[in-house]
Amino acid sequence: MKLLRVGDAGSERPALLDDDGVTVRDLSGVVGDVDGALLADPAALERIREAAAAGTLPALDAGGLRVGPPLGRIGKIVCIGLNYHDHAAEIGAPLPEEPILFFKAPDTVVGPHDTVLVPRGSEKTDWEVELAVVIGRTARYLGSAEEGLACVAGYATSHDVSERAFQIERGGTWDKGKNCETFNPLGPWLVTADEVPDPQALGLRLWVNGELKQDGTTAQQIFGVGEVVRYVSQFMTLYPGDVINTGTPAGVAMGQPEPKPYLRVGDVVELEVEGLGRQRQVLKGA
Amino acid sequence: MKLLRVGDAGSERPALLDDDGVTVRDLSGVVGDVDGALLADPAALERIREAAAAGTLPALDAGGLRVGPPLGRIGKIVCIGLNYHDHAAEIGAPLPEEPILFFKAPDTVVGPHDTVLVPRGSEKTDWEVELAVVIGRTARYLGSAEEGLACVAGYATSHDVSERAFQIERGGTWDKGKNCETFNPLGPWLVTADEVPDPQALGLRLWVNGELKQDGTTAQQIFGVGEVVRYVSQFMTLYPGDVINTGTPAGVAMGQPEPKPYLRVGDVVELEVEGLGRQRQVLKGA
Repeated sequence: MKLLRVGDAGSERPALLDDDGVTVRDLSGVVGDVDGALLADPAALERIREAAAAGTLPALDAGGLRVGPPLGRIGKIVCIGLNYHDHAAEIGAPLPEEPILFFKAPDTVVGPHDTVLVPRGSEKTDWEVELAVVIGRTARYLGSAEEGLACVAGYATSHDVSERAFQIERGGTWDKGKNCETFNPLGPWLVTADEVPDPQALGLRLWVNGELKQDGTTAQQIFGVGEVVRYVSQFMTLYPGDVINTGTPAGVAMGQPEPKPYLRVGDVVELEVEGLGRQRQVLKGA
Repeated sequence: MKLLRVGDAGSERPALLDDDGVTVRDLSGVVGDVDGALLADPAALERIREAAAAGTLPALDAGGLRVGPPLGRIGKIVCIGLNYHDHAAEIGAPLPEEPILFFKAPDTVVGPHDTVLVPRGSEKTDWEVELAVVIGRTARYLGSAEEGLACVAGYATSHDVSERAFQIERGGTWDKGKNCETFNPLGPWLVTADEVPDPQALGLRLWVNGELKQDGTTAQQIFGVGEVVRYVSQFMTLYPGDVINTGTPAGVAMGQPEPKPYLRVGDVVELEVEGLGRQRQVLKGA
């Protein structure tokens, strides 16, 4: 299933993308929201499947509706740094021996087509297309990557917007450059795991002003999705409604020759993960 | 006012500590919860003051009631690293030129007397008594420390439990050692800012098994509360219900000679910040 949330920011309603790939159907008569509670409740997910099969879900006039992030009440967002062979190579970083973790706050999440703000004083705002993993089952000290995969409810396209000077040149941890307002566009869809048979075979692409900048595949991930969930669960407990941004492939501005083409007000970024839908953001000033 | 939340984990009710310092009064007939929405609503806070003055708030039989964290629906927890002159000196770190930021996830928060779990595989679980700042007004690109202080709704005692090997020796950022389950006991009270005339003159103390380990003062903070809020607001937006753990004074296990006295299962930690109440935790195995 492709779950989404449509409407004004903060008052989105749950919806389902029809199998025709176009029609958006209202789920607000079936479930309260697309959130961790829903993802942890097989009976509620089954109610959606049955209503979809029965053809009883009303179609929404999606033309004028904003698409919000496809997940509400996000608990935490754990991010994996330097998790692609090609990205580590492009910035000259050694391959990490174990996953690098950092955080984005849930309040950085916006819809896939919402405005992204260049922070005040920023000269190094950068892009990162990523595969986001959405947790559906509590993960605590898991014993294997297979157990990790079993805790994944679904996947989404994620934009891990990053300010490199804040991240690297201002002291302390990476979090300082990862949590500016609007820095995590998510969606358009939360695609349930049953529709993603192999999360390690997904293409990821990102364009700036129409020019292809990133063109990677999750096959290049150093630590795959199941292993990432297992690893993270040794250091913290993952709950339904948590998100993991699993890292970005090569092609970010930081990895390019000087003068590096960091994002500027007015730029347009488009990105997609294969099968998970496409985002488009216009950059504005904060 | 001293606000608190009592009851089983996940279903706490809002309460007020009476001026007698003993009686706990039920606020559930006046407000829904102690959370960011309440702190951002002067009228709701005034309703509490009026009900307290009128003597109409029912007393709770607090004897058997668990004390929960004094704030619900926490948005994010920003933490300041190496923010005390004496703590930076004890671990041999240079004074930071600007605040070091890292994150704890809100799901690490437990009540002030709840069990703290030593993570599996941990050999370096450490303590940190801290002054927590609770945000009551949105803070975005603030211009001064005075504006920063004006965004503070209140203060609480906070225990920033830390696993030093996970934090420092496992690659990546500090977040890996700061987010284990139960790693942020908070409370017992959220003391409103009007009752804390000078947040830079508060004593902080922590004991392990009855032995005094930390005995500091917020006068030793490198970056004071107002400046911390101003600074953080340049990199991310702070919202009502967000928390800032403002750093720890000298006396942590990491700062002591070998063999460093890291926490073990069965240890008892007690801590307090002057005027904000006392915590007591028993360490158990995860």
